[in-house]
Amino acid sequence: MSKIAFIGLGNMGAPMAANLVKAGHSVAGFDLVDAAKTAAAASGVAIAASAREAVASADTVVTMLPAGRHVLTAHAELLSATAKGALVIDCSTIDVDSARKAHEAGGAAGVLTLDAPVSGGVGGASGGTLTFMCGGSDEAFARAKPILENMGKRIVHCGGAGAGQAAKICNNMILGATMIVTCEAFALAEKLGLSAQALFDVSSTASGQSWSLTTYCPVPGPVPASPANRDYKPGFAAALMLKDLRLAQEAASSVGALTPLGAEAAQLYALYVAADHGGDDFSGIINFLRGAPKEP
Amino acid sequence: MSKIAFIGLGNMGAPMAANLVKAGHSVAGFDLVDAAKTAAAASGVAIAASAREAVASADTVVTMLPAGRHVLTAHAELLSATAKGALVIDCSTIDVDSARKAHEAGGAAGVLTLDAPVSGGVGGASGGTLTFMCGGSDEAFARAKPILENMGKRIVHCGGAGAGQAAKICNNMILGATMIVTCEAFALAEKLGLSAQALFDVSSTASGQSWSLTTYCPVPGPVPASPANRDYKPGFAAALMLKDLRLAQEAASSVGALTPLGAEAAQLYALYVAADHGGDDFSGIINFLRGAPKEP
Repeated sequence: MSKIAFIGLGNMGAPMAANLVKAGHSVAGFDLVDAAKTAAAASGVAIAASAREAVASADTVVTMLPAGRHVLTAHAELLSATAKGALVIDCSTIDVDSARKAHEAGGAAGVLTLDAPVSGGVGGASGGTLTFMCGGSDEAFARAKPILENMGKRIVHCGGAGAGQAAKICNNMILGATMIVTCEAFALAEKLGLSAQALFDVSSTASGQSWSLTTYCPVPGPVPASPANRDYKPGFAAALMLKDLRLAQEAASSVGALTPLGAEAAQLYALYVAADHGGDDFSGIINFLRGAPKEP
Repeated sequence: MSKIAFIGLGNMGAPMAANLVKAGHSVAGFDLVDAAKTAAAASGVAIAASAREAVASADTVVTMLPAGRHVLTAHAELLSATAKGALVIDCSTIDVDSARKAHEAGGAAGVLTLDAPVSGGVGGASGGTLTFMCGGSDEAFARAKPILENMGKRIVHCGGAGAGQAAKICNNMILGATMIVTCEAFALAEKLGLSAQALFDVSSTASGQSWSLTTYCPVPGPVPASPANRDYKPGFAAALMLKDLRLAQEAASSVGALTPLGAEAAQLYALYVAADHGGDDFSGIINFLRGAPKEP
């Protein structure tokens, strides 16, 4: 069993840390927010007085933070207190450039580093069914895998430093645009007098098939488990989709990649979130595309 | 067995008519192009002197023409020569408004009508494995089904007049945009140093999954049968995808539907076709998104 420091005990980090405790690891945690610390303590996380104290005796450090700047700040503070040869796993979803800077800083400090953003949301974090997309050396991946398996069911080594972040934003860029055009098709079908079920029946077994259609269908009915059947309660909140689409756009700009539909998808989710739908499931954008109902 | 008139013996019509002959039907055909008539005759189609002559003794008329104006012109010419109670199946992919006008004209002339556009391309037409998306009455569909089964393997009744065309353009609008964003993701991944195989491995079993990715993967390697593995020879030519995306945009305009990504996809395929790639497979747009290779 490992001695693990867990930095960032928010909506995702707290249940992830709890699963590490359940698996028998010794987990020292830290967060800047008092309520987060109290909740994590209730699940057996030993709350440290500071992040540096949490990492001092750890062989493994896990960070789960909101954005690249938080990760770089935290790592700058922690690395000098972390044992040489320790493993530092960053599970945050952040920009690729910051992820690579974190790897460089870790390398300079003599620790092994892995970027390992997740998909699966709070449900996956609680249930221990997250997918981890990992970037880093074979050695870092091999050491991290048994620990990540306590928090997820699918642990994928995508490549070197930053590859985990790259895989996540590329996947979610596909997802965001595919969901929007699937919503557009349902909204168009309605106005053409084609039933949602008929479009689903054709496209689900044809070239329009996608996860957005057949697992997460944005209209109620065809896929009973999809958020459309519970008034678009997330699920995957539109604000988080927008975050990922913006990270994809940052990455595309930094390497000169052309992503016209990814850019348009980011703009459309920005409009949707600005219209006060950031907390709705991202498939709820179909209502935005339908326009406001006419007055009777 | 039926007496069938087949109007339009082009790349799609000729092999479809040949399959009707093979199934034992008596098929009288007509086309404006001499070479098309010669080719169809070789497969057992009886070539008529005119379209009116072809339909004169038919219980079933099939039209397979390039666009709505051709269908409306042909039907205007043919309907007065067609027996009352005959079945007129239009397999062309045309705009929804024209399809509905064709139904109206047929109804006024006392024939049963079905719009039944196909997917599956020339390969599906030759192999008899097309999908037919059908719009029209239950009676018209019931009469057409056994005949369409001689040319296809999946015959779907989508709804009333025009529903077949609506289903096809909604499906292909999803397809066009999903393919583009999938290409964008592969092009972005390359520039970020994430391998195509790694992105495929993550997304093919995650929320980025689609037919465009897992059946028709736009990079060589992961899906050996996809056109990417044969230098983007179609497959489904970009010019035909552009046609369908424009039909979707026409339909969206006519009913006031909002389809921002569908519109952008149409513009991007228009740029691709204008750059002399109309004959390439539509997944070849990935090369367009990559930009020109730099001089060494």
